[in-house]
Amino acid sequence: MMERLTQEPTLEDIRQSHEAITDLIHRTPVMTCASIDRIAGAKLFFKCENFQKVGAFKMRGAANAAVRLSASEREAGLATHSSGNHAQAVARAAQVLGCPAYIVMPENAPMIKKKATEGYGAEVILCTPTQAARESTLAEVVARTGATFIHPYDNYDVIAGQATAALELHEAVPDLTAIISPVGGGGLMSGTALTTHYLRPGVQIFGSEPQAVDDAWRSFHSGHIENNPTANTIADGLKTTLGEKTFPIIKRHLEEIYTVSEPQIVAAMRLVWERMKIIIEPSCAVPLAAVLANPDVFAGQRVGIILTGGNVDLDHLPFAG
Amino acid sequence: MMERLTQEPTLEDIRQSHEAITDLIHRTPVMTCASIDRIAGAKLFFKCENFQKVGAFKMRGAANAAVRLSASEREAGLATHSSGNHAQAVARAAQVLGCPAYIVMPENAPMIKKKATEGYGAEVILCTPTQAARESTLAEVVARTGATFIHPYDNYDVIAGQATAALELHEAVPDLTAIISPVGGGGLMSGTALTTHYLRPGVQIFGSEPQAVDDAWRSFHSGHIENNPTANTIADGLKTTLGEKTFPIIKRHLEEIYTVSEPQIVAAMRLVWERMKIIIEPSCAVPLAAVLANPDVFAGQRVGIILTGGNVDLDHLPFAG
Repeated sequence: MMERLTQEPTLEDIRQSHEAITDLIHRTPVMTCASIDRIAGAKLFFKCENFQKVGAFKMRGAANAAVRLSASEREAGLATHSSGNHAQAVARAAQVLGCPAYIVMPENAPMIKKKATEGYGAEVILCTPTQAARESTLAEVVARTGATFIHPYDNYDVIAGQATAALELHEAVPDLTAIISPVGGGGLMSGTALTTHYLRPGVQIFGSEPQAVDDAWRSFHSGHIENNPTANTIADGLKTTLGEKTFPIIKRHLEEIYTVSEPQIVAAMRLVWERMKIIIEPSCAVPLAAVLANPDVFAGQRVGIILTGGNVDLDHLPFAG
Repeated sequence: MMERLTQEPTLEDIRQSHEAITDLIHRTPVMTCASIDRIAGAKLFFKCENFQKVGAFKMRGAANAAVRLSASEREAGLATHSSGNHAQAVARAAQVLGCPAYIVMPENAPMIKKKATEGYGAEVILCTPTQAARESTLAEVVARTGATFIHPYDNYDVIAGQATAALELHEAVPDLTAIISPVGGGGLMSGTALTTHYLRPGVQIFGSEPQAVDDAWRSFHSGHIENNPTANTIADGLKTTLGEKTFPIIKRHLEEIYTVSEPQIVAAMRLVWERMKIIIEPSCAVPLAAVLANPDVFAGQRVGIILTGGNVDLDHLPFAG
């Protein structure tokens, strides 16, 4: 039986994780788009995690954390706090493995998120919308149920799971010259960096985030984890700050983190919808926005872009008007 | 050199057409969706022509008509009247083959359609928005330029081109038990019917259209081509009536044509956006709406659904509110 990872995943850890979760995830397609390539002046390869189970890459990390639990741990269940894609990913992983899931969500989370999570059979526990309330409510749930807390990003099993997206991308496109992910808490970014560093050491690794929550850019340049005074961005998956496990990996392996404005995010999102005919969520448009905003860096390159998710509220889109 | 088809395409004609247009089209993917399968109680295989060049299957027919012209005909160019996907398909085919294109469009067509067509290098000629004005303006253009008129559907080259979508679908999924397309002018429907009849004679062939423009359903049951008194549907690609070349094929090979309401169309469109994370236009949602509305017919079947196109105006979506 596999055990939980207690240090930075090796390439072998990432490969074993990929095998272990193969029945719980989709091997998502890599798409290209000639007209966006012309605009970017580069050859872009989009790894379509918007087509992943639960509509986001988060399924990889949650699945990898779940499959590594012992039989008795599984029986007690999984727990997390999230109002986003990680909530649904943990709920779905638990459902597939036949164990309970407990999801702490702020009471102002959209009803659609609560319903979707419950749709996967999870118990949703609402709390006051503060970080302190989230953590204390989660602690109560864990104490009551004995469930295992699966952190959304600062967890080596989760990092190794997210790292499998880049593994599939590099296997599908063996001659990338650069790769770029968005940075929220850094789970996907650190996983992408590790896989790329091990497998394709010549490939440049970039991060991207909204200017409005540029904590990762500031952390990368100051050398310690910075916070966001506000969280006023459409890219709601990227508001979180880096973790103690994700930041060192990011600091070590990235070339740079690029920040983009809100209009640049919406324009990149619209470009993908219109030209590629696929649905991506705002957070997911951030790396393309960064590529388009930095032609001096990316022009002429073969760039892997991880499209992270496709969960949008169709009743509240940023295009109309 | 291939010549223009002057009678109903044979399987050999369809195969030759497919070879002839291979450089002008994408071989589009076939997608499946476990959660929509559960709702439908059937196994659905979506042929994603929303990912086709110009965002719609129309590229196949326009390309096949264009490649069959002689060198002197190509030099004089292509002409058509359309404000929809056929306009862009003809413009794009002409652009790739390096010849002029003249597109007659009603003056009330959305500016975005005019710009997109001009973006492919075509000359757009505006006319009064009546069928008579369209035809007389087109006649003037043809007289002035010597261009060849490519009818949007009532043309055997166009029918053979559209038939190549089903060819690829049956090759990808050799054990379908049913196939369904939308019916507008009948180019795609008749092509789908011919390919399926030749290649998989046991497969049931169905059509689908909006109740609001149920001319094909009425024609199928009355035995002669019927008109639509109104054209008040969101499925703007399906307002046209059948043609003299398409109707006999449809009459001969279809099991039935199902009609669906406007709310059923929007619900099916939304389901595809939310569950499959791909963008389809309203006309494109009609066959899925028909499958969902008729479980007595489709439950337990392996159904091929041709997703026809993904060109929507993101500023005017039918979901909000």
